[in-house]
Amino acid sequence: MALIGKLVVCGVGLIGGSFALALRRRGAVGHIVGVGRKPASLERALELGVIDEIATDWATALDGADLVLLATPVGQLDAIMSAMAPHLGPNTVVTDAGSTKRDVIEAIYRRLDAQLPRAVPAHPIAGAEKSGVDAAFADLFVGRKVVVTPLPENDPAAVERVRAAWAACGATVVDMAPQEHDRVFAAVSHLPHLLAFGLVHDLAGRANAELLFSHAASGFRDFTRIAGSHPEMWRDICVANRQALLAELDQYLAELAYLRALLMAGDGARLEQLFDEAQRARNAWAAQFSPTSTAE
Amino acid sequence: MALIGKLVVCGVGLIGGSFALALRRRGAVGHIVGVGRKPASLERALELGVIDEIATDWATALDGADLVLLATPVGQLDAIMSAMAPHLGPNTVVTDAGSTKRDVIEAIYRRLDAQLPRAVPAHPIAGAEKSGVDAAFADLFVGRKVVVTPLPENDPAAVERVRAAWAACGATVVDMAPQEHDRVFAAVSHLPHLLAFGLVHDLAGRANAELLFSHAASGFRDFTRIAGSHPEMWRDICVANRQALLAELDQYLAELAYLRALLMAGDGARLEQLFDEAQRARNAWAAQFSPTSTAE
Repeated sequence: MALIGKLVVCGVGLIGGSFALALRRRGAVGHIVGVGRKPASLERALELGVIDEIATDWATALDGADLVLLATPVGQLDAIMSAMAPHLGPNTVVTDAGSTKRDVIEAIYRRLDAQLPRAVPAHPIAGAEKSGVDAAFADLFVGRKVVVTPLPENDPAAVERVRAAWAACGATVVDMAPQEHDRVFAAVSHLPHLLAFGLVHDLAGRANAELLFSHAASGFRDFTRIAGSHPEMWRDICVANRQALLAELDQYLAELAYLRALLMAGDGARLEQLFDEAQRARNAWAAQFSPTSTAE
Repeated sequence: MALIGKLVVCGVGLIGGSFALALRRRGAVGHIVGVGRKPASLERALELGVIDEIATDWATALDGADLVLLATPVGQLDAIMSAMAPHLGPNTVVTDAGSTKRDVIEAIYRRLDAQLPRAVPAHPIAGAEKSGVDAAFADLFVGRKVVVTPLPENDPAAVERVRAAWAACGATVVDMAPQEHDRVFAAVSHLPHLLAFGLVHDLAGRANAELLFSHAASGFRDFTRIAGSHPEMWRDICVANRQALLAELDQYLAELAYLRALLMAGDGARLEQLFDEAQRARNAWAAQFSPTSTAE
């Protein structure tokens, strides 16, 4: 018997679609219902066999549902939870794929107060600059981390259902406190995205942008890959986590002020020392933690 | 008959070694002599068949040489040119692989004033975070750009010899003015390297660095790949091109100040607009210019 009889995916894009594909391939899901803002992309998901059914109202979608994955930009979650709340039964577990957790948890307390035992916040760490259901694939989460930030009110069985679903996708599930989650990802994910968007935006606005881009090579390609990410998703992440992101940005600006002083002084010795420390740390990380070392 | 009878490579690392391997595979070179600071890496180059002979003095190395490639960090070029100058014959063309060109040209005028017709500055645009002769491979330059910045005093036949050698490596050879070269690469290469080194150095210095790195994913991997680059090489580039690099850094700091203001104000609309413009520009670049689109 399937782990999840009926799955509802709200926002059938890269993340939601890959979650559905992974569970289906594993035989861990029975029936998959898609919900979302864009009829065209739901039709596409149906056409691709990512979902079995499109629901246009929450009552139909949630009837007999075992698990709901909210995989939309986090800015939409408050309104979505508010709309679905009246139709949530006692056997339906709700989880999300938001890249920020404090704001999602605030929305849960506001909108799902009657379902707190079965509302389990989570965040799959699967970077991909492409978006939309056409970019979804069953292996997206294989070997990736999924961070679960359970609420004190959560029913252990509900948390276990969420953990088991992500484990079935091939992910490694870890627990974190929401505040720590948001600080950690502001540093290693949200800030780098902001910096990459900023560099491309800066260069694209130049009078000689075409000349500049025509000479950019593989270093530029990799440095700016995340600037190809979903603008609305990243708008919501930056706004939702701006407190932690501003703290990280300010620390980084202090680092750049130091680098600028070394350049002004032409201090080659200190520049080399800093580059050397960074190179060692980066190579040590790549050797130990790199999500796909083979792609290094 | 080989394009180059005798080739001398000074600094047999990733770039110098790959140049030698590419020309040899193409049958475009007869005999390859290696010169350098580190006997061990020259021995390794000999062992790998990258060079045919190790020379420990310039008189021997340059005797009957058709082409000399200086592929050391740019900070060493002034002293190297000074040492080799007395031994350079009238049939030997000298070129370099420096990532900056104004400083290299200044060194040429200082040290190779008697050889100006045959001293041809160039820069192969081949990004690779790995360094050393073990990382060298014959295909490194296939499909990559090589920028040549000829001097007014250059003999056209000498420039052609350099162009032909790089073309034989599979590269596309383009001409640029030195000042423009240094401004363009400050923007699309030197600044991104500085930013990546800075981010990794910033995070590596944190008390919770281990926790941070343990949650970094593929976006972080690609954004920081160039922080694995050769510290001495990048020290020299940053010092040599600090004027243009500081101008680029200051423009980027203005961009970050704008982003910071948008975050402070929680201005989601302007953040999304900026991210959207960056995403479009980056995707357009990837489609048109990406050095290896297949790796995107």
